[in-house]
Amino acid sequence: MTFGRTGDLADRVRRLGTETAFAVSAEAAAWREQGHTVYPFHLGDMDLSTPPNIVVATEKAIRDGKTGYCPNAGILPLRAALAADVGASHDLPYGAENVAVQPGGKPVIGKFILALMDPGDEVLYPNPGYPIYESQIEFHGGVAKPYGYVEGAHDFELDFDALEAQVTPHTKLLVFNNLQNPTGAESSAAELERVAEFVLRHDLLVLCDEAYWDIRYSGSSRSLASLPDMAERCVILYTFSKKFAMTGWRLGAAIGPTLITDVIALLNVNDESCSNHFVQWGALEGLTGDQSGPRAIVAELRRRRDTAVELLNEVPGMTCFKPEATFYLYPNVSGLMERKRFTDYDQLRRVALEQTGVSFCTRLHFGRALPGETQRYVRFAYSGIGVDLIREGLGKLRDWAAA
Amino acid sequence: MTFGRTGDLADRVRRLGTETAFAVSAEAAAWREQGHTVYPFHLGDMDLSTPPNIVVATEKAIRDGKTGYCPNAGILPLRAALAADVGASHDLPYGAENVAVQPGGKPVIGKFILALMDPGDEVLYPNPGYPIYESQIEFHGGVAKPYGYVEGAHDFELDFDALEAQVTPHTKLLVFNNLQNPTGAESSAAELERVAEFVLRHDLLVLCDEAYWDIRYSGSSRSLASLPDMAERCVILYTFSKKFAMTGWRLGAAIGPTLITDVIALLNVNDESCSNHFVQWGALEGLTGDQSGPRAIVAELRRRRDTAVELLNEVPGMTCFKPEATFYLYPNVSGLMERKRFTDYDQLRRVALEQTGVSFCTRLHFGRALPGETQRYVRFAYSGIGVDLIREGLGKLRDWAAA
Repeated sequence: MTFGRTGDLADRVRRLGTETAFAVSAEAAAWREQGHTVYPFHLGDMDLSTPPNIVVATEKAIRDGKTGYCPNAGILPLRAALAADVGASHDLPYGAENVAVQPGGKPVIGKFILALMDPGDEVLYPNPGYPIYESQIEFHGGVAKPYGYVEGAHDFELDFDALEAQVTPHTKLLVFNNLQNPTGAESSAAELERVAEFVLRHDLLVLCDEAYWDIRYSGSSRSLASLPDMAERCVILYTFSKKFAMTGWRLGAAIGPTLITDVIALLNVNDESCSNHFVQWGALEGLTGDQSGPRAIVAELRRRRDTAVELLNEVPGMTCFKPEATFYLYPNVSGLMERKRFTDYDQLRRVALEQTGVSFCTRLHFGRALPGETQRYVRFAYSGIGVDLIREGLGKLRDWAAA
Repeated sequence: MTFGRTGDLADRVRRLGTETAFAVSAEAAAWREQGHTVYPFHLGDMDLSTPPNIVVATEKAIRDGKTGYCPNAGILPLRAALAADVGASHDLPYGAENVAVQPGGKPVIGKFILALMDPGDEVLYPNPGYPIYESQIEFHGGVAKPYGYVEGAHDFELDFDALEAQVTPHTKLLVFNNLQNPTGAESSAAELERVAEFVLRHDLLVLCDEAYWDIRYSGSSRSLASLPDMAERCVILYTFSKKFAMTGWRLGAAIGPTLITDVIALLNVNDESCSNHFVQWGALEGLTGDQSGPRAIVAELRRRRDTAVELLNEVPGMTCFKPEATFYLYPNVSGLMERKRFTDYDQLRRVALEQTGVSFCTRLHFGRALPGETQRYVRFAYSGIGVDLIREGLGKLRDWAAA
């Protein structure tokens, strides 16, 4: 049954975006169905199992009858455990009252915007970046103002000139995704200080998307929220999806000033009553119980990263940084495209898929290209493909590029 | 840590409502903590267990690795099963493409409004009614226009004069909650025809909140969507919460024209990626497997209804209909309030709690009183209290009222 009149839709629907990466998944699946081998580097999903202690605790919670509604902001023990965990890693005195549990990390983006952005307000957001920021900003009547990254010596760096150039008297919010998707970029201590100074100078509030905080291979993650005068301006997006391989469980949290998390919890009353009750008990075990599960996940991801970075740098015309966090690689493919005489990203992506089976997203799946952008990039995710297949697929990609 | 500046919040936050019934829950809990017996009739939550076959299927899904992301609109087998189930009960040719799975029934309200209502559009909604309608309409910039119910011979009836009086050229949407919370009202066939004629005459689109469709004790539920020319104008709110005692699992669906459900699924991409993956496999077992669980739930609720209706009608100054659906009773307490010389709803509620332990919500928890409203009502929910305690509590209420 298909019916309905297009004119019935609200105007804002025309401003609603999506994740175009889903179209890449569909193309890869279609190619596989035709009998071809596909090496899935396009996925942000994970092929790893949720740690068994979380599964056991969840099943116990169901059997114990944790199947009715729970408080809108989440069960108190989980809020307290999140405040303790994030408070310790951020050196901030968060309490349970600073935590609003959400059905995933993504709900924090929409609720942050609904709570703080009026129509016409301008919001700075990363581009390339997670495409939902721009979609939510524009859908709810804001003005999305992109800022980018530039290649440094060992990592991508924030393009501060672009950031400054985008500020106007209407700029109210900054979306900041340190440990970044798709670039893997991580701010140095000096860069974080510069961001903090920028935030104070322009009197901004910040969504700190820290979805990849615990997916790191050396050193420690640093947060903008931990810098002086920043905690009162930052809402942290926390998710259980990556650290605990719980993407399909849908659980996350907004952590920040109570003025904002209280409004976010009131949005939970309105939007979904609460997050799944028994999943929260499983997540509590994840945070407070045996940590061998998340350690094994990071160890496996490290092996994949090491393999993938090494091989991508063997592909003629590709150069790739080695980020210490996230499960993404964002190689520069300008040389490869020149070599192959490709002018179009989709041409590169489709020919590579058909010639090698290697499936990946391109820069354009993470926002419209910015004015003056000359270098070309694609994104490889290694969360959904093991070391052996990484080696096999990227070997084929290297041979194809060299031919 | 409490900080943040009130002036930072978006203007729309001032228009955000809540469920004031939560305050009643808090008062009841405080009274119990002081050592008093409380008879909880204020809850819309359920004290019944989710059927074991759903629990087993859910646990199997977790063990089978249904823990990654699933499609934004839900897993295909569940969408197909919902289309078959609701299609059969509504005599409509729904297919999987007409179904967008949601993390609860409540998300359908917000997404329906975001998809179809522009700022300034007027939306007719029931008052007394579920308070989230009004909150979502106003939060997103619409104009909420209430309509009420009047006492008929055996049930509440739609106040058509009020409905007609509220229509203007800006009226675009109707929220229609047949099998209604809090009144238990159910439209006769003739009333449904009159609503359909009204919808066509004013060219409206309709949210059919059918959360209580399967909670019924005799006869069959009827839907506005089943009437001629209505399916293309109606989005059905479906929820697993009541039929399967799955309130805390958070699963529901929007069912309607693909033009609208496609937009709602696109909102899922933006708002939460997808609903919990393995819970959907449990719900599929609920829809397609052994039905003794939901039958036992309805049988238990019927015993509670019979007991509660009989006893409420013994309370001096109370009269109560006997609805064939929902788990709510909405007695007229005008006589009781006069008898006790109460002029204020909260006075009645608080004195009854303190003198008898019986806790309930009043008319004011379901919207602001309408102009000219003279009769007084309170709501008793029997989803969270067993037959013995119903008898004990309402016996005390009767004796207190008689004194």
